[in-house]
Order: sequence, then structure tokens, then C-alpha cells
Amino acid sequence: MTKQNNQSIQALQWTGDSLKVLDQRLLPEQVVYADYRDSAGITEAISTMRVRGAPAIGIAAAYGVALSVQQHFSANPVDWRQRVAADMDKLAKSRPTAVNLFWALDRMKTLLQQQPLNPVQAVLACAKQIHSDDIAANHTMGELGADIIAGTKGILTHCNTGTLATGGYGTALGVIRSAYRRNPVKVYAGETRPWLQGVRLTVWELAQDGIPVTLCVDSAAAWLMKSGVIDWIVVGADRIAANGDTANKIGTYSLAVLAKQHSVKVMVVAPTTTIDWSLENGDHIEIEQRNQNELLPACYSKENSLVSAWNPVFDVTPAGLISAIVTERGVVLNPAGSGVGVLK
Amino acid sequence: MTKQNNQSIQALQWTGDSLKVLDQRLLPEQVVYADYRDSAGITEAISTMRVRGAPAIGIAAAYGVALSVQQHFSANPVDWRQRVAADMDKLAKSRPTAVNLFWALDRMKTLLQQQPLNPVQAVLACAKQIHSDDIAANHTMGELGADIIAGTKGILTHCNTGTLATGGYGTALGVIRSAYRRNPVKVYAGETRPWLQGVRLTVWELAQDGIPVTLCVDSAAAWLMKSGVIDWIVVGADRIAANGDTANKIGTYSLAVLAKQHSVKVMVVAPTTTIDWSLENGDHIEIEQRNQNELLPACYSKENSLVSAWNPVFDVTPAGLISAIVTERGVVLNPAGSGVGVLK
Repeated sequence: MTKQNNQSIQALQWTGDSLKVLDQRLLPEQVVYADYRDSAGITEAISTMRVRGAPAIGIAAAYGVALSVQQHFSANPVDWRQRVAADMDKLAKSRPTAVNLFWALDRMKTLLQQQPLNPVQAVLACAKQIHSDDIAANHTMGELGADIIAGTKGILTHCNTGTLATGGYGTALGVIRSAYRRNPVKVYAGETRPWLQGVRLTVWELAQDGIPVTLCVDSAAAWLMKSGVIDWIVVGADRIAANGDTANKIGTYSLAVLAKQHSVKVMVVAPTTTIDWSLENGDHIEIEQRNQNELLPACYSKENSLVSAWNPVFDVTPAGLISAIVTERGVVLNPAGSGVGVLK
Repeated sequence: MTKQNNQSIQALQWTGDSLKVLDQRLLPEQVVYADYRDSAGITEAISTMRVRGAPAIGIAAAYGVALSVQQHFSANPVDWRQRVAADMDKLAKSRPTAVNLFWALDRMKTLLQQQPLNPVQAVLACAKQIHSDDIAANHTMGELGADIIAGTKGILTHCNTGTLATGGYGTALGVIRSAYRRNPVKVYAGETRPWLQGVRLTVWELAQDGIPVTLCVDSAAAWLMKSGVIDWIVVGADRIAANGDTANKIGTYSLAVLAKQHSVKVMVVAPTTTIDWSLENGDHIEIEQRNQNELLPACYSKENSLVSAWNPVFDVTPAGLISAIVTERGVVLNPAGSGVGVLK
């Protein structure tokens, strides 16, 4: 593992006529990029988790639409709109929980309805704007979050919310980057089973940036909190309801309940594109259930097996367990009372 | 995975002149036994976790002493006692937390101090007695525990506390076996990182017994409890202090805190040999820290790596979070007030 320039490990890079996607399933052992030249490829990259992280999924989908318009507009000026719509339907079905995906697709749909003279150029410009806006938003959130946790001695994060999960810099990991620059806070990362994003991505990314990090198994978080070294849990979000209830990686709800019992505070860091204004509260958030073979050794996968697995990818943390929601538009402290409407 | 007679999958089998030990690190893919003919081999089998589980460690250590006496008494009738004492010292250092290990060694030491006429025979008989007493105790605990959770719809267990962790039948898993025989309760098992005893051992053992079981990642336990399907957490113990504080596999404390917040009850099932009467409370229990490479991919193991891992194997659950401690001598309900002194 050699130290690399941070720019070189972006999850997503537009090349001019394709999207280079870092295959995050191969990290940290191998750094492999694949070039995607059509929307179907992007759909597959999202559904197979080559690219993951709610903001990165939204950005990838936006480039997917750009590739779809490039392909179909030049090939068939008559029915290109139907073909693009079909591609967008497939992109929408690639993962169910991250609202950024649907937000990016809606933005593209609105743009196409405006009948731009040059749809190829317009859609690509929009995808690039979504990408650069996300990076700028992350830097803003990093500073806002670091303001709140000034003086913190220890932070625990979960899953990966960094450069790899976003357009760049990261949401929760952006706050940790900004906080560490001001004051070398101690950073802990949970493994994040079953995909081990903490092991494979978060500690790798932090080490690339020169930030020391200590890994622990997810179930050790409570014992770590009891030892008194953690002041804040800082996590990202896959979808936030209007009242502040937050869907994030499975295990986040567990951390939030445990945090409350140990007087540890919980910060959610996410761009406002993660807020689903149509949902009054978290009860209505669809939770993706992934294949049980992600947990089960092959020997259990047989007919009439008595062994099954329950594999929800996300859980929902009630607003009442969250101390701060940090967005690029500002911070909501203790969202339980007010929800996040002030950010609308 | 073919259905096997339960007797054939015992973790420990005395052959007459050796101890057959099932290598639990290879399950569920391979069922491999190794024959150990001296105490050094048993010490290695314990420290490398070929055999694990507090009661099984105690039984293996007892047979280790029997093998040591067999070897040294016949070879050298003059200084055999010093050689056996040296072997016992090494056995005592094989793992630090399970008190059953020290209990078994103390019992052997007392026996040898009584200068039996035929030490080989006496020590072996004692080891066999420890083994069969453990199995009998497990059946007693199974029934006592099943009495308490009569009518329960769902149980979550952690780590492996079954036939593989004990002389046979199991502690917490013994209660689950007995409960399931009376009424087909729904059983859930946590993966139990980092060694995945839940995945590799618990669900395998239960399936061998015809008991359906659903696996989940450790960090999903809170979300599972919130869904309302769990009434009881049933776990084993590696060491219990006089006030009822209980050391068990890392993640148990987490489950107990989460259980309280979800009105789920917590049962600890362990033979009285697991009680360390010398400890007033759990603050004095030594917690084994294992090598960080159990969590870290090889690419992080280099000089000046910024990535480290915190790898405690156990945590301590305060008595106040425990609803019942079940032993072969009886049950203590809500041990926080009284401790477990009534079992002495």
C-alpha cells in the first residue's frame, strides 16, 4: 500500500466519453478501475456494489443518464427519449434505499422535459454539476461538523462515507478529515459487516490521508464507549425523513441506542439531497434486504437447509437519538423537536 | 453437510491414551479431529483456538494434566511432579479469561497434593469426572433455563455455547435445545466477529440437531430486537464475579444494553465452575486482547502503519443488565441485588 495522491483514488472519474469507476469490492488489496460507456454498465456497477455510498450512487446514476443520452440521441433521433427513459427505469431499480439515486434521476428527467436544444451537452453538464456540487457540499459540511465537535477526543465512525462514497472528500469522513486537521482527534472505525466497508475502505482512505485510525469489530463499540474514549459517533445517511429519522448502514441504529446509554453524541452528515421530503418519518423508508448468501457459507445453501440469514442492509435511527444533522445548508441540532424542515 | 449423530461431533473425546480434539477452526466446511498425546499439544490446541468455549477449555486442560502425569510418572518417578507442575503452568497460560481452566487445574493440583497411590489412574478418573459432570450439568441447566423462558417466541444467542464449547449439549445452547424440544421457538444467532463462531459453529450445531436457525450480523441485533421478534437473549459466560457481573464474548455487553432498551430479557447460562468467587465484581476480570491481525488485512501490517486494531475478546456485562443466571445448582433471578452467593 503506497501513499497515493488523494485525487487518484476518486471513486468516479469522467473521462470525456466514459465513467471510470473504482471497483471498491477489490480494495484494499487491489486498485482496479473499470470504464463504463453505457447506462447498463452503470446500472450493473451500482447493483453489484462496485460503486456504493448514497452520494456516489447518485452521481454515477447522473453520468449513466448522460451516457444513455449520448448513445441514443445520436443513434436514433426519433425514439431516443423512450430509450433513455427505459435506461433510467433500470438505473432506478439498481438499489432501493439511497434517495440520492432518485433525486439525481428526477433532476435529469426535469431537465429533459425542458427540451434542451443540445440534450447531450445539457445532460452531461448537469451530471458534472451534480458531481462538483457534491464535492463542494462535502467541504462545507466538513467545516460545519468540525465546528460542532471542537475539542472532541475520540470519534467512532461506521461504514464508509469518504471520498469513495461521494464525489470526493466525504460526508462523515469529511467531518473527520476537517476535525483532524484542526486537532489530531483519535479516530475509530467499525468493521461494518457484512461488506466490511470499515476494514476495506474507511481505514484505507484515512491512512492515504495520513490520519491514524483504529479498527474494531462492530459488536465492540459498546465496550469501547464504556471505556470512555469516544465522545461522538459520526455517520453518513442513505435517506433522511422530514422529521429527522435517518436510514443508514445496518448497525447505525445500534450505535445510536448505545451512544445514548453512554452519554456519547451522534452526528449524521449528509447533503440535503439525502432528505426525502415526501416521508413524514422513518417508518416509511424501504429497507433493502440483500441475499442471505452474503452471510452464509456455501455449505448451508442447499435445499431444505435449516440455516437461513436475515440480511437488512440499513436500519433507521429515530431523530430522538441524533444530536446533530449536518448538511451543506446548515446544521440542525437535536432534530427530534423540529425535524429538518428548516433546511428546505 | 450430512446429518450426523450428535455424539459423533463432540469437541473432545478421550480415546484411552490420547484426547481427540475437533479442530473448530475448520468448521463448517471440514470435520477434522487431531489426536493429542501430551500436555504441550493440549496447551497449543487451547491457545490456537482449535478448542474453545470456557467449559471445553477446562475439560481439555484436565485431560492435559492426565496426559502429563501419564508421561512423566512412568518416565521419571523421581522428578515427575516438577515436570507435571511445569506442564500445568503452561496450560494455565494458554488463555487468560475462562476461569474453568484455572478451576480444573486447581482441582488437579489439590488431587496431586493428596498423594494418590496411583496418580495416573486418579488424575485420569478426575478428568473423566469433570467431563461427565459438565455434560450432566448442561442437561440440568437446559431444563432450568427452558422453565424460565416457557412461552418465548424468539431467542437470540451469541458466540457458540453448545456441544462444541462444552463437554456436550451446551450451556446457552443447551437451554435453547431444551426449550425447542418443548415448543419450536424461533432461534436467531449473531455472527460473532471476529472468529464467526455463530456462523461456523452455532448454526451448524443447531442444524445437526434439526433446529432451524436464522443468522444475522452482530450489528443487526438492535434492529432485530426493535422488530419485536426477540423475547430473550441467551448467552454463556467465560467468568462470573460474585456480584453476578459476567465476562463473555465481545458483543455480549452490547446485546445486554440493547436488550434493556427494547424490553428484552437476558439469560446467562453457565456451570458454577464459571463463577470466580475471588472477584467481588467484574471490574477485576482480566480481558484477553488478541492480535490485531485477526482484524486487519495483511496490507495494513507493515512498519509505521497508520492502521491498528483494538481486539478485546470479551466484555463484561454488569449484573444489573442480567435477568437470570442459570447454573446446575439453580437459578438466580435479577442477580443485581443479591449476587450469586446463594449458589456457593
